Amino acid sequence: MERYNKKKIPRATAKRLPLYLRNLTILDAKGVVRIKSKELAEITQVPSATIRRDFSYLGELGRSGYGYDVTFLIKVFSDILDSNETSHMAIVGFGNLGKALANNNFRRNQNLIISCVFDTDPEIIGQTIAGFYVYSMEDFERVTREKNVKVAISTVPSEHAQEAIDTVVNSGITAILNFAPDRVEVPSNINMRYIDLTTELLTLLFFDRNYKDTPLAITS
Amino acid sequence: MERYNKKKIPRATAKRLPLYLRNLTILDAKGVVRIKSKELAEITQVPSATIRRDFSYLGELGRSGYGYDVTFLIKVFSDILDSNETSHMAIVGFGNLGKALANNNFRRNQNLIISCVFDTDPEIIGQTIAGFYVYSMEDFERVTREKNVKVAISTVPSEHAQEAIDTVVNSGITAILNFAPDRVEVPSNINMRYIDLTTELLTLLFFDRNYKDTPLAITS
Repeated sequence: MERYNKKKIPRATAKRLPLYLRNLTILDAKGVVRIKSKELAEITQVPSATIRRDFSYLGELGRSGYGYDVTFLIKVFSDILDSNETSHMAIVGFGNLGKALANNNFRRNQNLIISCVFDTDPEIIGQTIAGFYVYSMEDFERVTREKNVKVAISTVPSEHAQEAIDTVVNSGITAILNFAPDRVEVPSNINMRYIDLTTELLTLLFFDRNYKDTPLAITS
Repeated sequence: MERYNKKKIPRATAKRLPLYLRNLTILDAKGVVRIKSKELAEITQVPSATIRRDFSYLGELGRSGYGYDVTFLIKVFSDILDSNETSHMAIVGFGNLGKALANNNFRRNQNLIISCVFDTDPEIIGQTIAGFYVYSMEDFERVTREKNVKVAISTVPSEHAQEAIDTVVNSGITAILNFAPDRVEVPSNINMRYIDLTTELLTLLFFDRNYKDTPLAITS
């Protein structure tokens, strides 16, 4: 979808795209076909004027007063996030979670490819497990360069996460998805996202206990 | 921490707590000790007046013009989200991801307990695997009632997710964490959170490609 000049989108707008996308997919699943900026503002907690301005950067997405077509917005936002370039990824830590990620996920997007997996356990290094040759972390920089890896997904537990992430950072990779909840230190040029399942669960429970009649919208 | 009357927090404020919490933990990891509402507004894209109002509901968290203590905010928000009640959880789908969740996660919070695991595969039903007895989905309602389960974590792939979630919903459980990215239909009283790894990765890549010099803050 080359209609959208991705470079032109202001950074603040870009940061809200995943938030819009998540809430729109929820609305779509509930059968909502059309939504006004005020309604989306209510759900996302983004002011409606900001939503309209954000959407205006993305072209003609809807008509004032009439609302936006939910399916169309989902398609546009998905296309913007998706580069249609193949992205090679490395998994750091090849336990159950690493294997689950390598084998079961990202099927929805054929451009996301797990190209190599790493571990520090001598018992599995050099073995082919679940279809993946397990490399030593000592070979991380060399192998990820050879395979043009742009993203590292770390499943290393918190107590060893800093060491693993340091190796990733030193290899020159700047995009990291980290499944360990405790914070690790990285240089300011690194893009890191945490998948913090404990906070996700506590948030879910918090809403389930306190807001029984008004279920959670996905705003975080 | 019973100083905070959780019931009193407006729902819109409550919805922003996880967003604040995530960004504050990132700031803390970067060594930021103190933050002003304007700075936090820049990062979270929540207007600073809204931030100050939100924080005012939570008691004396900081002084105007002086800023907020990051560590203290993290403690307060974590305590609000955490009920200090034990919550029993069920895992639906006991493949690699289910095993990873059962064995490796939630260690950070001793109140979150995986009490039972379920699958539909006759080869593993009735077996004890990785320390967990695997129940049949046919026994879901009975077993989760006996064990007072309040949350279901579904690792069932998209093609079977609707069926699995239907069984969860019919059992009376209203809080669901779903690892399948495709949307499933649930009644409006259900609190469901999706962990959508594909969207997380696409967002990470999008920022890594387009905003190299200004890394991603965790706003979604």
